[in-house]
Amino acid sequence: MSIKAKWLNKVKWDEHGLVPVIAQEVGSNDVLMFAWMNREALSRTVELGEAVYWSRSRKKLWHKGEESGHIQKVHEIRLDCDEDVVLLKVEQADRIACHTGRHSCFFQKFEGDKDTGEWVAVEPVLKDPDSIYTK
Amino acid sequence: MSIKAKWLNKVKWDEHGLVPVIAQEVGSNDVLMFAWMNREALSRTVELGEAVYWSRSRKKLWHKGEESGHIQKVHEIRLDCDEDVVLLKVEQADRIACHTGRHSCFFQKFEGDKDTGEWVAVEPVLKDPDSIYTK
Repeated sequence: MSIKAKWLNKVKWDEHGLVPVIAQEVGSNDVLMFAWMNREALSRTVELGEAVYWSRSRKKLWHKGEESGHIQKVHEIRLDCDEDVVLLKVEQADRIACHTGRHSCFFQKFEGDKDTGEWVAVEPVLKDPDSIYTK
Repeated sequence: MSIKAKWLNKVKWDEHGLVPVIAQEVGSNDVLMFAWMNREALSRTVELGEAVYWSRSRKKLWHKGEESGHIQKVHEIRLDCDEDVVLLKVEQADRIACHTGRHSCFFQKFEGDKDTGEWVAVEPVLKDPDSIYTK
């Protein structure tokens, strides 16, 4: 079974058997999103060449784009110095990674100071979420 | 107290009172490292304009660069759509973020397939760690 492969043992899985994953766009280097993987998700990602995460809320494998069509073609996989964080370099279908219809999930920018600060949405919605998630 | 500021309440802190943080280099957009913050760390980061993390191993605030000199000047702070991940855009002192003396912590690249895969260090050491951490 590939989920017992040696390279998967090098990853330091947390107490829930998960590792944090950052998805970064090839070319722009924009950080698109952050999610989690278990062993099977990472193995499937390598096998498919497309990002497969572990959905902590739904408690199941989540092939990114399975509903929205916004799949992530994986160009490169990196592991950090502590071997407990994964970085994916991906080609993002439609350049929309966020469920709000935005390019990146990191669209809220901090403005102000430590007392008066607020988070302001500064990136445009590229596609109406209602038209992304049609049943 | 600024750690009670309203903007800090918008962040969804996990069961340990922490939020995952991605540090990205301004300009290159390279992902440098991944760490954690608690309320105080995020508040201090805003106040100082330099990255202050929460060290889970040492269980204390960690002003990045306090020993190495490799501080991170914060240009921008972003929050994701679920409000549970922070992205910092930083200017990295000496362009060295990793304790191994490399530019980025994500220097290990996956090569091979799901059965034969391995992680290969593909980025150069820019500075000998022994000369970074001198007492």
